[in-house]
Amino acid sequence: MQSHLDRPAIGVDLGGTNIVCAAVTPQARIIEKHKRLTEVPKGVERVVANIKECIREVLRKTNLSLGQISGIGIGSPGPLNTRTGVVISPANLHGWHNVPLRKMLEDEFNVLVVLDNDANAAAYGEKWAGAGKGVDNLVVFTLGTGVGGGIILDGKLLRGPDDTAGEVGHCTIDYNGYQCKCGNRGCLETYVSATGIVRRTIEAIRQGRETVINSMVEGDLSRLTSKIVHEALEQGDALACEIFEETGRLLGVGISNIVNTLNPEMIIISGGVIQAGEHLFRPTREEVHRRAFEEPARTAKIVPAQLGGEAGVIGAAGILFQQLAIEARTQKKP
Amino acid sequence: MQSHLDRPAIGVDLGGTNIVCAAVTPQARIIEKHKRLTEVPKGVERVVANIKECIREVLRKTNLSLGQISGIGIGSPGPLNTRTGVVISPANLHGWHNVPLRKMLEDEFNVLVVLDNDANAAAYGEKWAGAGKGVDNLVVFTLGTGVGGGIILDGKLLRGPDDTAGEVGHCTIDYNGYQCKCGNRGCLETYVSATGIVRRTIEAIRQGRETVINSMVEGDLSRLTSKIVHEALEQGDALACEIFEETGRLLGVGISNIVNTLNPEMIIISGGVIQAGEHLFRPTREEVHRRAFEEPARTAKIVPAQLGGEAGVIGAAGILFQQLAIEARTQKKP
Repeated sequence: MQSHLDRPAIGVDLGGTNIVCAAVTPQARIIEKHKRLTEVPKGVERVVANIKECIREVLRKTNLSLGQISGIGIGSPGPLNTRTGVVISPANLHGWHNVPLRKMLEDEFNVLVVLDNDANAAAYGEKWAGAGKGVDNLVVFTLGTGVGGGIILDGKLLRGPDDTAGEVGHCTIDYNGYQCKCGNRGCLETYVSATGIVRRTIEAIRQGRETVINSMVEGDLSRLTSKIVHEALEQGDALACEIFEETGRLLGVGISNIVNTLNPEMIIISGGVIQAGEHLFRPTREEVHRRAFEEPARTAKIVPAQLGGEAGVIGAAGILFQQLAIEARTQKKP
Repeated sequence: MQSHLDRPAIGVDLGGTNIVCAAVTPQARIIEKHKRLTEVPKGVERVVANIKECIREVLRKTNLSLGQISGIGIGSPGPLNTRTGVVISPANLHGWHNVPLRKMLEDEFNVLVVLDNDANAAAYGEKWAGAGKGVDNLVVFTLGTGVGGGIILDGKLLRGPDDTAGEVGHCTIDYNGYQCKCGNRGCLETYVSATGIVRRTIEAIRQGRETVINSMVEGDLSRLTSKIVHEALEQGDALACEIFEETGRLLGVGISNIVNTLNPEMIIISGGVIQAGEHLFRPTREEVHRRAFEEPARTAKIVPAQLGGEAGVIGAAGILFQQLAIEARTQKKP
């Protein structure tokens, strides 16, 4: 008989704009993927209906019946409660308050469902099938509009009693620094997020720095994005080069804190910014070696993520498989 | 038959100045304690002989034979390797290089010996028998000449592959801050250690602040210690009051980083500085609530340590008992 652990799982990546669902094998291979709009403004019921429809579409495309899948793993914006399966009140799921998403999907599909936050799902994806394959102690820094993260210790996600562990973007690196939207000052996020990169670039331009960026945005700095800074970097622009160098150094400060605190085997950086390659990674590594203790700095490999945008769906499925494996072990015990 | 887990263990706290040994019951009660000088300048062999003699003295005082104890737990300055039991090259055990301390004591006493670093032993002591009793996820900040720490997750010490995890005093809170003796800049330690308290006090006095401290050190600021700042606080000195307020706030920055990263249930502060009571704890808690995310900040109770100087010996014995319990469970499995 085929065990649950041999069947594919459905991974769901619930975002503020899109829902992505995929059928994922126990070997972390995506069989089939489907994407649709989340439609947050249309209300909770509509979003949940969209999730269900997205899952059904993947089942249709793969010809899998519910009896042929091992379950559903969902990565959702937090805050949420992984034990009760309730999504509490995420900033980018406007109108959501204590939505029992896990129960709603269990009732619909009658399979095992697990819920975790999106940053944890992406981190687990990289651990299971990406840059962190085979590594049991690692920390993921995800650089986007903000800076998120996930911590894996002994092969398992560190969640904490409130499911809020892993907010590595909200560690203070300058207690008198920039105001962060989380309420704190000087969070790593205020420096190395896309927003932080844009802010530091604008500050430098306002101080009179020459750069191709000025003409790229036709003199309108409100149009500047971190992608444009990256394009300037590819054109060999000196300021863009310095901005990425500085981004790496500041990221290195945040990573050093984690290296000294947790002594992880690996640090994975994900997000569009990793396309800058060694322009980002060289100064990051140098700064970690300069700041952190020698031994843990040597141990912690700093590497780019490998799964890109698919880390979330793959990881959500992976968390489901891990949960199944834990339950299988528990049942075997007397 | 009495199991190993029912017998007392010997805890050893190996310091740069003193060796403290104690017979500790499985209920974390000290039966008998003995202290002697470490005598680091007399060489490794002499220090090891002193440790052995200190253990034998505790056995004599308690009338315990080697067959009546469950083993020996040692807390030693790091770096060290908990798996091989080797002390690598601690700054305050001058002349020590790769000393196989665990093996040396196993050969002498023929009982189970475990080695861990002193900060971990003290943290585990507080978890096992002090402020953290019954709490499985906590972080200890030890404020002394430097700032050390220990992290306990799921009831177990987080050590990391290099046994260097838990260096919470060497997280950067201002990347352009004071030079730290670890090589980094702006470590929490540079602000809130005894050295940091003295430095900030001297800076304020040099800026012309009125304070009783001036007369307490008879105008010689090189004689200032954090203990004197505390005495001034007890006399109601306004500057001393401000220095402790600021210490609490800066400590709160470092704690916020840990709260956002690990979502622990408790933060334990140890060291002489906790005698300042609410002068320290109130600003610390306020700063954590101001900076960290709301939920984990509410969860993380910030409390003073309870075991004082005995945390190390008690914790070293506790680590031995935990190791025995793990081995007992492993042996039971098929």
